[in-house]
Amino acid sequence: MTIQPILINGKWCQADVCGQFQADNPKTKQPLEHLFPVSSWSDCELALNAATAAVAKLRDIPSSQIADFLRQYADGIEARADELVEAAHAETALPASPRLADGELPRTTGQLRQAADAASVGTWAMSTIDTAQGIRSVLAPIGPVCVFGPNNFPFAFGSISGGDFAAAIAAGNPVIAKANSSHPRTTQIFAEIAQDAAQQCGLPDGTVQLLYRLNHEDGERLVADPRVGATGYTGSRQAGLALKRAADAAGKPIYLELSSINPIVILAEALAERGDDLATEFTQSCLMGTGQFCTNPGLVVLPSGEMTEKFVDNIVAAFGQAAAGTLLSASVERSLNAAVTSLVDAGAELLVGGQVGAGEGYSFANSLLRVSGDAFLADAEALQQEAFGNVSLLVVASDLDQMTSIVGGLEGNLTGCIYSATENGDEASYRKVAAALRPRVGRLLNDKMPTGVAVSPAMNHGGPYPATGHPGFTAVGIPGSLRRFATLACFDNVRNSRLPLSLQDVNQLGGWRLVDGDWTVADIEQ
Amino acid sequence: MTIQPILINGKWCQADVCGQFQADNPKTKQPLEHLFPVSSWSDCELALNAATAAVAKLRDIPSSQIADFLRQYADGIEARADELVEAAHAETALPASPRLADGELPRTTGQLRQAADAASVGTWAMSTIDTAQGIRSVLAPIGPVCVFGPNNFPFAFGSISGGDFAAAIAAGNPVIAKANSSHPRTTQIFAEIAQDAAQQCGLPDGTVQLLYRLNHEDGERLVADPRVGATGYTGSRQAGLALKRAADAAGKPIYLELSSINPIVILAEALAERGDDLATEFTQSCLMGTGQFCTNPGLVVLPSGEMTEKFVDNIVAAFGQAAAGTLLSASVERSLNAAVTSLVDAGAELLVGGQVGAGEGYSFANSLLRVSGDAFLADAEALQQEAFGNVSLLVVASDLDQMTSIVGGLEGNLTGCIYSATENGDEASYRKVAAALRPRVGRLLNDKMPTGVAVSPAMNHGGPYPATGHPGFTAVGIPGSLRRFATLACFDNVRNSRLPLSLQDVNQLGGWRLVDGDWTVADIEQ
Repeated sequence: MTIQPILINGKWCQADVCGQFQADNPKTKQPLEHLFPVSSWSDCELALNAATAAVAKLRDIPSSQIADFLRQYADGIEARADELVEAAHAETALPASPRLADGELPRTTGQLRQAADAASVGTWAMSTIDTAQGIRSVLAPIGPVCVFGPNNFPFAFGSISGGDFAAAIAAGNPVIAKANSSHPRTTQIFAEIAQDAAQQCGLPDGTVQLLYRLNHEDGERLVADPRVGATGYTGSRQAGLALKRAADAAGKPIYLELSSINPIVILAEALAERGDDLATEFTQSCLMGTGQFCTNPGLVVLPSGEMTEKFVDNIVAAFGQAAAGTLLSASVERSLNAAVTSLVDAGAELLVGGQVGAGEGYSFANSLLRVSGDAFLADAEALQQEAFGNVSLLVVASDLDQMTSIVGGLEGNLTGCIYSATENGDEASYRKVAAALRPRVGRLLNDKMPTGVAVSPAMNHGGPYPATGHPGFTAVGIPGSLRRFATLACFDNVRNSRLPLSLQDVNQLGGWRLVDGDWTVADIEQ
Repeated sequence: MTIQPILINGKWCQADVCGQFQADNPKTKQPLEHLFPVSSWSDCELALNAATAAVAKLRDIPSSQIADFLRQYADGIEARADELVEAAHAETALPASPRLADGELPRTTGQLRQAADAASVGTWAMSTIDTAQGIRSVLAPIGPVCVFGPNNFPFAFGSISGGDFAAAIAAGNPVIAKANSSHPRTTQIFAEIAQDAAQQCGLPDGTVQLLYRLNHEDGERLVADPRVGATGYTGSRQAGLALKRAADAAGKPIYLELSSINPIVILAEALAERGDDLATEFTQSCLMGTGQFCTNPGLVVLPSGEMTEKFVDNIVAAFGQAAAGTLLSASVERSLNAAVTSLVDAGAELLVGGQVGAGEGYSFANSLLRVSGDAFLADAEALQQEAFGNVSLLVVASDLDQMTSIVGGLEGNLTGCIYSATENGDEASYRKVAAALRPRVGRLLNDKMPTGVAVSPAMNHGGPYPATGHPGFTAVGIPGSLRRFATLACFDNVRNSRLPLSLQDVNQLGGWRLVDGDWTVADIEQ
């Protein structure tokens, strides 16, 4: 069987192979047809050199041309949508429709088009001009960006199609994509479309490159390489932290999205007002996509009492009745089983589920665990570990003070939600819990489950460590996500004609600029 | 002799002493009168707990109150200006006037007042509002900020008075200041003024705290402590990188300003046009403050030829004639001597200077070294090490290509300058060198020495590693410097009355906000 080629410097070519792998079909547990290479370091060398050459050329390319590429790429994705959906469905078992075809694919092309708009107008780069002192600065491309994509969003977070890719390219950088090993064929199709679009739009060879897999040492060497500008990573905490160590030691920015249990706090007044509705809402959110979302609600904090018992009965019944979905891979199944076992070992009671193989292919029964607030606080470290999948832990606290202590002691999370009464009857309780929860999470929701992550300029898909590596940046949302892949470039006493377009007196790109303290789109008058 | 107290939780109290130290007067090399403590870890514990308590209280304090504090602090500094200047002059040997009294002091109070304006209006926090999707985000305080100040700016970069302090406080965070050991008495006076102002303005105890010195282990433990939000550090590369390792491993943001040789490239056409003027300009910049600036021009790249020989003769004469200033400390003298020795060992020729003790007190002769472009490229790593003080290395390149190679191979620097002809005669040469230099530096200057660092919104006092720890942030300039000490806080479906003031429909602070893609100061209409 032929080993699939990698994409280096604008060409599909044979890898310097040091291993090979196939993806499984998670429903059948059988290997899929294509054979993919594990690359040796020499492939990274080629990619790094090509990316470095591309950096110099991209500097002279107008941002409108980069925008054209992103739009043409989005069009190309739509043209091959059926093929992408089929490949991703085979590799991930995610439903072809609506999930892949009607949810994730439009999200992906939408992101690329938003990134195109951002690239061409340039507001994201925060051009800042001090006319009196003759100093001007702007966020500029940081250099080649390595993107490691996760297993759970083969399109929208894919290494050569997703948010990190769109952000890095829109900010003017070449991307070296490392495919997720669970969906290499999907990634390959994206790379084909991207490379065609890059070529048609006249982007330099080496602007988009793809490797399928590296051994861990080479991955760490890659993110620390002097030629690299920065890295975007979404995936497991353990692998991410190994990359972080390597990048940190080399002084290379790395943006990580690692893990999160996304605490949900339901105040007594909300339970009283609409407990049954909340049970339905929670069940849908937690089981959607077989729970395989970064923002899946993995921890629910409830006040003890009858209403909580009714809520728990409701969701236990619902979890028992709902079919267990197929998980993304053998490793997700294995990790989920290990996490549930470890929660039970730490004192959580299994209310429903707990069995491996309860559905088609790789699967795990929809599971709920329960622990008292006292028990949680006694071993919070063990009881707040992520169980990635269709599982959640219910913590029944003695009172509001204990609910506050529980959320106040959590480590960093992407999201946290508080459900309260519609009519503001519990404002004091809300404020108490919110004050404890707010600093622990990137996004604080009210009366809404966290599993939807809108691609909005105001979104924060980020949060305090160890949910991510830096609490000041978001992985989703434009223009914010672009700013991760940029360096602050200041020009002092530099003649107008020598400035980048976005800093010249005439506002040629038309984006917003901070001129002498005020944001404006106007030209600067001489 | 009494050991001076530390400032913890609003009170001046005795340290848990594990050592003691005195600062020297650099002119006399004699110890100054006050004795200061080296703190044990238990002092850090107290400071961390007090700062944590302050965080919660600061959350409920309007930003206008923080602004009032910053302004009152600036007023208080002016009221005790003579005392500060006297103390700093004794501890640093920097001239009382104009440097300290007329330069650095107004810069310091100006920074504090700019930070006050930024705090009260809130534009720095980039409030971003998506009305359609009900999502709003803003940069929010990150938590207690540790500030380690450098030796060379006892006021403007001082740990409890300078840019990092102003930025951290204006962003809403308490500060744990670690004094620079070379000017503890100056720092103590600042802390007295700051604490008085904090008390008068009703800021929580523990908003401003001061320790004088820690052993290295405790310093590393401090920046990695779970209670810490972030750290700002300006100082030596070695000590800074040790703190970086500790902070990185704990997932704590740390902003470092480490070292820089600030390359100056003088194109042939500029030398021809105004070589004599450039010699004067360079000499003044390099010897100002005895060369003890982060942005001191430590490397000059010149094209070989007669004009360069004339330029070199000029500056050698000027360096020889100028009096050698007093250095900040014994350790600066020692490091400078070691750096010059090591440059000579790496093949540089000493043109003038080279002697320790050429001036009053700690001092080193004004020194110039020279090396060919070939020799520089053969051992660039050794020849680009920083010699902090009144020393510069001249690299005479064979031609423009070699000048380009030299700057293109430099590690990250804070600044880089290119001098070219006034009349654009050498535009092609400029573009070639600028393309190589731009990605290596935070601030690119034209026809201007780098030693002035204006406090401008457009300033970048930052740059690629190892000049700093992250190329996207600046340590000088408001509002940018505030954003280092912030976390991105997103609110999704949160009721208007529960939002921070800066995100509510009515724009109560009056700052700029990014609403539905456009920057505006308008309210949001319902």
